[in-house]
Amino acid sequence: MVNFECDYSRGAHPRIMERLMATNMEATPGYGLDKYCHHAESLILDECGISEGKVYFLTGGTQTNACVIDALLRPHQGVVCAESAHINVHEAGAIEASGHKVLVLPSSDGKVHANALRKYVEDFYADATYEHCVFPGMVYISHPTEIGTLYTLDELEALSRECGRLGLPLFMDGARLIYALAAEDTDMTLRDVARLCDVFYIGGTKAGTLFGEAVVTRRPGLLSHFFTLVKRHGALLAKGRLLGVQFETLFSDGLYKEIGRHAIDMAMMLKSAFVGKGYRLYIDSPTNQQFIVLPNEVMDRLAGYVSFAVWGIRGESETPVRFVTDWSTSENDIKVLISLL
Amino acid sequence: MVNFECDYSRGAHPRIMERLMATNMEATPGYGLDKYCHHAESLILDECGISEGKVYFLTGGTQTNACVIDALLRPHQGVVCAESAHINVHEAGAIEASGHKVLVLPSSDGKVHANALRKYVEDFYADATYEHCVFPGMVYISHPTEIGTLYTLDELEALSRECGRLGLPLFMDGARLIYALAAEDTDMTLRDVARLCDVFYIGGTKAGTLFGEAVVTRRPGLLSHFFTLVKRHGALLAKGRLLGVQFETLFSDGLYKEIGRHAIDMAMMLKSAFVGKGYRLYIDSPTNQQFIVLPNEVMDRLAGYVSFAVWGIRGESETPVRFVTDWSTSENDIKVLISLL
Amino acid sequence: MVNFECDYSRGAHPRIMERLMATNMEATPGYGLDKYCHHAESLILDECGISEGKVYFLTGGTQTNACVIDALLRPHQGVVCAESAHINVHEAGAIEASGHKVLVLPSSDGKVHANALRKYVEDFYADATYEHCVFPGMVYISHPTEIGTLYTLDELEALSRECGRLGLPLFMDGARLIYALAAEDTDMTLRDVARLCDVFYIGGTKAGTLFGEAVVTRRPGLLSHFFTLVKRHGALLAKGRLLGVQFETLFSDGLYKEIGRHAIDMAMMLKSAFVGKGYRLYIDSPTNQQFIVLPNEVMDRLAGYVSFAVWGIRGESETPVRFVTDWSTSENDIKVLISLL
Amino acid sequence: MVNFECDYSRGAHPRIMERLMATNMEATPGYGLDKYCHHAESLILDECGISEGKVYFLTGGTQTNACVIDALLRPHQGVVCAESAHINVHEAGAIEASGHKVLVLPSSDGKVHANALRKYVEDFYADATYEHCVFPGMVYISHPTEIGTLYTLDELEALSRECGRLGLPLFMDGARLIYALAAEDTDMTLRDVARLCDVFYIGGTKAGTLFGEAVVTRRPGLLSHFFTLVKRHGALLAKGRLLGVQFETLFSDGLYKEIGRHAIDMAMMLKSAFVGKGYRLYIDSPTNQQFIVLPNEVMDRLAGYVSFAVWGIRGESETPVRFVTDWSTSENDIKVLISLL
Repeated sequence: MVNFECDYSRGAHPRIMERLMATNMEATPGYGLDKYCHHAESLILDECGISEGKVYFLTGGTQTNACVIDALLRPHQGVVCAESAHINVHEAGAIEASGHKVLVLPSSDGKVHANALRKYVEDFYADATYEHCVFPGMVYISHPTEIGTLYTLDELEALSRECGRLGLPLFMDGARLIYALAAEDTDMTLRDVARLCDVFYIGGTKAGTLFGEAVVTRRPGLLSHFFTLVKRHGALLAKGRLLGVQFETLFSDGLYKEIGRHAIDMAMMLKSAFVGKGYRLYIDSPTNQQFIVLPNEVMDRLAGYVSFAVWGIRGESETPVRFVTDWSTSENDIKVLISLL
Repeated sequence: MVNFECDYSRGAHPRIMERLMATNMEATPGYGLDKYCHHAESLILDECGISEGKVYFLTGGTQTNACVIDALLRPHQGVVCAESAHINVHEAGAIEASGHKVLVLPSSDGKVHANALRKYVEDFYADATYEHCVFPGMVYISHPTEIGTLYTLDELEALSRECGRLGLPLFMDGARLIYALAAEDTDMTLRDVARLCDVFYIGGTKAGTLFGEAVVTRRPGLLSHFFTLVKRHGALLAKGRLLGVQFETLFSDGLYKEIGRHAIDMAMMLKSAFVGKGYRLYIDSPTNQQFIVLPNEVMDRLAGYVSFAVWGIRGESETPVRFVTDWSTSENDIKVLISLL
Repeated sequence: MVNFECDYSRGAHPRIMERLMATNMEATPGYGLDKYCHHAESLILDECGISEGKVYFLTGGTQTNACVIDALLRPHQGVVCAESAHINVHEAGAIEASGHKVLVLPSSDGKVHANALRKYVEDFYADATYEHCVFPGMVYISHPTEIGTLYTLDELEALSRECGRLGLPLFMDGARLIYALAAEDTDMTLRDVARLCDVFYIGGTKAGTLFGEAVVTRRPGLLSHFFTLVKRHGALLAKGRLLGVQFETLFSDGLYKEIGRHAIDMAMMLKSAFVGKGYRLYIDSPTNQQFIVLPNEVMDRLAGYVSFAVWGIRGESETPVRFVTDWSTSENDIKVLISLL
Repeated sequence: MVNFECDYSRGAHPRIMERLMATNMEATPGYGLDKYCHHAESLILDECGISEGKVYFLTGGTQTNACVIDALLRPHQGVVCAESAHINVHEAGAIEASGHKVLVLPSSDGKVHANALRKYVEDFYADATYEHCVFPGMVYISHPTEIGTLYTLDELEALSRECGRLGLPLFMDGARLIYALAAEDTDMTLRDVARLCDVFYIGGTKAGTLFGEAVVTRRPGLLSHFFTLVKRHGALLAKGRLLGVQFETLFSDGLYKEIGRHAIDMAMMLKSAFVGKGYRLYIDSPTNQQFIVLPNEVMDRLAGYVSFAVWGIRGESETPVRFVTDWSTSENDIKVLISLL
């Protein structure tokens, strides 16, 4: 079976495993207070171009979203996001579990646009009964979005400006940020993200670590007492140095960029192959997730040799499916797929 | 000023105030354990045609929704409702405050329809990732709906049957149930409501009491330990007998029906007046809430003599407004309004 | 039956009922935005000697505690109180329902003392693992305490100073504040309370209103967006003016003080009677709650003519019981009781 | 520096790291639905002597406690435990974050005893106001307890029987269960634990894995929809197979018992050394945590060569400290320590 099911099917990138082995017998303080976490933090802040910021390491995406959103909101506030947002659809109510409403904006491209946000907030305060409603308290976006699209730098600049004007912290879920930054036509850099978002995270789980997400902020005051809040969410890893070691490796010798570029290269080969064979794109995605519409008989035949995910619900005669690449995808994997088409 | 602003602008119906005065010096146990609550419970169960049910008295609508929904759901479940539902829009996140997601169905008429519900639930379980999502755990409706429309008996029968088939308790918010039952063309009775809903409440606040909502269920096991749950929500009234006295009065000598009929009569006179003068209905409502589109200059002129509510946001040249009648609306009020048009 | 069961057994003081009747047919805005609430607020602030403060009216004690504490704490913080505190024992977990831990101090007299608080907080930060623990975020006291004792002015001054030093808002539950202020030997005035507590409330339910608690603060910024927070807790009364009318009456013509004094006079007569007959006090209380140890046979005989509450659990041969007086207790009630002893 | 600070200072036992390396390049489904998790589950159920049970793998202890307790309680219920319990003291309010109160029993030995539990519950229901209080809904214990003591088989039998009689599920936190089972004089086996507890977990983090706790139940119905609940708590690991691989290794070839025995051997050597040198035990613990009272000058001198933890707060002249052993402690470590005394 060739694996295109997801970008968290295997363990970790070999260089990361090596480092975990090499440091295995060292004794360090727990809970992220070790030298590896400190070093990884400084590597990341450097890469982000932030001098006075702060980095926190957590284990997974849903818990990271829950902790950050719980930290940023007061009880009368909710989090504004696109209807398709992961926090709205696929986190089993983790945000509501902390008492906060998810306030959804309709969005055809999976993004929150500055003008849609402005209108939402203006309409909110224009309604005479707004004090009976959940206040918008922050904005959540993901990059790439849930459907693989990317913000342009202009779009993120505008959104960031609007958030600033409205006093709403802007939070980016970067579970797959690595692939957004490596996409072919993007004009967004990690420094742009760090400058334009109040808080964001750099996903590790889907980028070649065993697990781990690095929360970054240039405004540490927004996350005061975050250590205790993370503990309260059951999200504080005892052997926190495992996160430090992994992110230190990811941000050494360009590994982060290398992994991103490789996965994008593979994804573009894969996309070309499908397009070349006349298949229709369900979404034209520039990232490591490729969405193709397959006739059901093709889908069923492929399923014997290649793993991938049905995107939503199986259709009558054709079905959108998702193919994902990552650090472990090989050119040969793509060739096998092509030969099967 | 003639009052059409809402149905909770004045105190209580005079017969209710009389009873509160007459019983004021009696000493009774607190927290609803008194003879008035017991009597009111049995009057209501009789009227509902329920032999083995249970009634709980709470103070206001939002707290009643929060308590009932918290009682009916388990942590991995959410409440399904129409997008316009009060719990989704106007309760400041009271449902999420207990950790539960509000799962919205698009709805053009403010109702949850059996077939839309079935499709929602089927699609939910058809998605391979459903275990990562908030499960539908119950259905919330209101009658009349948030926009003044009414379920037909057929619609409620179908919805109730579908809920039963899916194992989802059906809960009706009856804050204005009094007006639904008194509407001219409805084929729904209180007994139908009691038979078809697993839990529902009969609003008092908007029906002529000082405050109070009577939660009714024919399935008491669904609300086990409800007393303690109500206390936990800060919703247990110390002098609970005030609720008993008021609902006892409402359900004695036909007062409940009398108030409902009167308000509907006044609302129909008001509607006819507007239609007769050529104004457009924003929604054609059979209940005590009437939604009219007014040219802004008419709206502004009226506002000097009559109170009413802008419905949403003021438009450029015309604006939808809401006029509400209740037990205290007089024919003279309507005449004054007509003379002003 | 003569009633000494509690101070919320009857309706409201006749002057309050009169005012509710007199204002019943007036139409006002809902949710506390009416002239009665505004007037009651200014009467209360005057009486408290606060020029720039804010008053909010809620319905009951548990919901008031839940709303205020939820407003004052951040997620990593808990509320410090005496072990016997109402929020710790008798509120069905309403504080935890908003996600906050109740941090208990052992206390033999039901009070939080400045030095015990200081030690608690010092020990908290002295422990190397404190960031894994719930931070003390505010202090909750009640006056009188749960067991009827009173803070002296010195004690409250010291506690307030300590709270200020530690940056912990001091919140007083004044469900029975009326009786604390009317006690014979107290040196505490309402102005002292208002000056020394950051937030407190003046109970109405146990002081002669049908229901209602007036939250007072001289630091309005502490309760920002409290209206919405109250709504979120299901605690916003639609006909809010009922609270305004009642508190306006309570704070007009000295009614508040009159009720307090009367109940204390009755309580002291009752206490003297028991002591005179040789009964032992379980707690020597200066307020309207009197705690007497009764031989079980006396208790059982009395129970046929007089209502009162067993305090805790029935003993083998004798049992502590509680007698409560209020505005409706008459000298004749006391005489009947004496004749029965 | 010789490390006695805690049992999570290093990475994982070499055999576990080997297996993680060996399986690193395999692609498996995520979220614990892989063959390694299935195999680990069956190994654990076998070892527990459970035929029809269920095992869930989570990442850390606090999140495991939070998820299990949230699954077992209804909203009006709290969790009963000893005052010193980890959930009461060191989890930053993770239990309250899900809305549940921690109901503490005083306990001098860190245990919940059957008779103390019975009295607590009897007193609870004997109080006339119990419906205003948080109901006991389950019992939490840890083995070893927070202070290193062990239940005897008789004690756990009695507690389990009492829980059964009262209808309260018994949940054991086994973060350090490995050391309890390996203690010299214990009469408790893993099969006893599995038979007597409704739910318990086998700690991995402190037993030689990188992370991971295995929740075991012989009553799967108690944890219905646990997958989704875990997701809602942000505790579902994407690369769940990492947990499967680690627990599979721990429960193959007797590694679990080997690690436990080794750490206990080291701990007993360490204890003997201190006792032999005339130092006083703060607690006489049979497990891998040893609590010694050290004169401050000895403590300060040792601190230059050996890592350990101050237990609580530094005393005036002497201080209780904790030394911990684990799989990585060597005889040489103990010898170095002895030479320093």
